[in-house]
Amino acid sequence: MYAYAVTPRALTKYESIYSTPLSRTFFDRSSPRSPNSSSSSINGNSNRQAGCKAGSKSSSSPSASRCVGYCRASTPSSVRPSREQAPGMAVKVYGWAVSPYVSRALLALEEAGVDYELVPMSRGAGDHRTPDHLARNPFGQVPVLEDGDLTLFESRAIARHVFRKHRSELLGSGSLERAAAVDVWQEAEAQQLHPAAGAVVVECVFAPLLGRARDQAAVDAGVEKLRKVLEVYEARLATHRYLAGDFLSAADLSHFPILHYFMATEYAGVVEEHPHVKAWWEGLATRPAARKVAGFMPLGGAKKQQE
Amino acid sequence: MYAYAVTPRALTKYESIYSTPLSRTFFDRSSPRSPNSSSSSINGNSNRQAGCKAGSKSSSSPSASRCVGYCRASTPSSVRPSREQAPGMAVKVYGWAVSPYVSRALLALEEAGVDYELVPMSRGAGDHRTPDHLARNPFGQVPVLEDGDLTLFESRAIARHVFRKHRSELLGSGSLERAAAVDVWQEAEAQQLHPAAGAVVVECVFAPLLGRARDQAAVDAGVEKLRKVLEVYEARLATHRYLAGDFLSAADLSHFPILHYFMATEYAGVVEEHPHVKAWWEGLATRPAARKVAGFMPLGGAKKQQE
Repeated sequence: MYAYAVTPRALTKYESIYSTPLSRTFFDRSSPRSPNSSSSSINGNSNRQAGCKAGSKSSSSPSASRCVGYCRASTPSSVRPSREQAPGMAVKVYGWAVSPYVSRALLALEEAGVDYELVPMSRGAGDHRTPDHLARNPFGQVPVLEDGDLTLFESRAIARHVFRKHRSELLGSGSLERAAAVDVWQEAEAQQLHPAAGAVVVECVFAPLLGRARDQAAVDAGVEKLRKVLEVYEARLATHRYLAGDFLSAADLSHFPILHYFMATEYAGVVEEHPHVKAWWEGLATRPAARKVAGFMPLGGAKKQQE
Repeated sequence: MYAYAVTPRALTKYESIYSTPLSRTFFDRSSPRSPNSSSSSINGNSNRQAGCKAGSKSSSSPSASRCVGYCRASTPSSVRPSREQAPGMAVKVYGWAVSPYVSRALLALEEAGVDYELVPMSRGAGDHRTPDHLARNPFGQVPVLEDGDLTLFESRAIARHVFRKHRSELLGSGSLERAAAVDVWQEAEAQQLHPAAGAVVVECVFAPLLGRARDQAAVDAGVEKLRKVLEVYEARLATHRYLAGDFLSAADLSHFPILHYFMATEYAGVVEEHPHVKAWWEGLATRPAARKVAGFMPLGGAKKQQE
C-alpha cells in the first residue's frame, strides 16, 4: 500500500507548481532562499557543485551556442545507449520538483538510474523568466533537462529522451507493435487522464493552499470525465498487466505524478473502485523510483484536510 | 501561396469534427448516407472494398482478438521498415476527415506514401459509439488506424507509428539529438500551439456553423496565448529552417491540421505577422500531401464569413 507520509505543512519548504496551461492556479510559498544557492544533488555526487545556478546572475548567460530543444553540437552523434554519463557531461534538471511535470522528468531519470542534479528554481522569484532560463526554455516553463550538449524542455519529451538513451525497452524499442502501444497509452495519459485528474488536483489540492475557494463545478466535471477514462483503463488493465501490454513502459510511468496528487484528494475512491486500476497504481506508486520522487511531492495531506 | 479554395458550403457534405476535449463544440451536418456505404479509397486501389464498414452492423464484431492500442499478434515482430504493405494487410483509417485529428493521421500516411482507405463514419449516426468502434477505440474517438494486426488510436501516436514504420527520418531516428528535438517540438505542438489555436478555431470556424454565438472571451484568450507561443516559434524558425532543426520532421507536420483551420479565420494575421512562421507555414501548407489532405478539410471560407 502506498503511504502518504507527507503533509501540507511540508509545502513551506517547496517552491511553486505547474508551469503548463494547468498552472493557471499555481501557488508559490517560497522558503527563504539565497538566489545564489547551489543546486541539489539528487542521485549521488552530493558534493558536486552545479555549473549553472538558477536565479544567479553569474550563471551561464544566454548565448548563440545555447540551442533550445536541440543540441549545441554541430554534428548529431549516433545513438549511444549508455547507463553512464561521460565525465563532465552532468545531467541537470531545472525546476521545482513539486511540479508534476518536473517529477515526470525526475522519475524517468530515477528509473533509468541516471546520476543527475536538481537545480532549484523559484517561481516566486521569477527564475523561470530570467534570460538564463528563457534561453533554456523559451516558453519559460519547467522542467528543463541539460544532458551534455542537449537542452530539452517539455516533460514528456524529456522522459522519452532519457528512456531512449538509457532504457529504450520502456519505449518498446525494437518492435513496431510495442512502440505503438507505448505511444498510444502515452497519448492517453496526456490527452485523456491528465486533463481530467489534473483539474481535480488543481482545485482540491492546490486551491486551498492558494487561499482560494475551490471551483466545485470544475472538480465535478473532472471527476465525471475521469470516471469515464478509468472505465477504459480498467478494461485495459483487466487483460494486460500494464497499459502497453505485459511490460512496464514509459506510458505507465508518465501517469505517476498527477495520480500521486489525485490520490491525496477525497476523490481517491474514484481510482480505488476500479480494482485493476487500483492494483496497477499501487504497483506504480511503490516502485523505489516513484517512492523517491514522491519525497519531493508533498501535499499528501490534502485528503485529510478535506475530511 | 496557400489558397483557401473551399467554402463553408462544402461542409454540408462532411460529417462532424473533433473528438477530443476540444470537441465540446463539434458540429454534425451529415449528408444523406447509407449506413452500409462502402469505405473510400484515398490513395489508390479505388475499387478495393473495405473489410470493415463503419456503422454497418454486419461489419466485424468486437472480439477477444481485437486488441486495443496494441497488436493481435502474440509475438511482437521486429521493426521492419517498409514502404509497402504486405498483401491483405490493408491500412484503414476510421473517422471523419474534417476532424483535424483524422487529418493528422491522413497527412502522415500521405507523407509516407502509404496506400490506405478512409472508412467513413458519422458522428451524428453514432458510429463512434457502436460496439465495433469502441472495440477499435474504447474512448469512442477518431481517428483509428488499422495496420494489419495493429489497431491504434490517438492521432499523434498513429502518426508516430506511420513514420516509425515508413519514414523514420521524420522522427529523427538514429540520432539522440534529432529524435529529442522532434519530441520537444511535437510536445510544443500538443501542449502549446494546439490548445491556443484550437480554441480560436472552435469559436471562429465551428461555432457559427453550429448556429451558436462565438465565445469572444475564449477567442481573445486563445489569440493572446497564441501570440506568445508564436513569438517562441518565430525565434526558433529564424535560426532553423524547421522546428526540430534543419530537417522536416513529424513535429512540423503535426501542426498542419489546426493551422489549416486557424488560417481560415480573421486572426490569420497573427501568424502572418511573424515572417519566419509565415514562411514555414506556407512551405508546410503547399506540400503535395498537405494539399491533398486539405481537400478533406473545408471551412476555408470562415475568414470571409467574418469579414
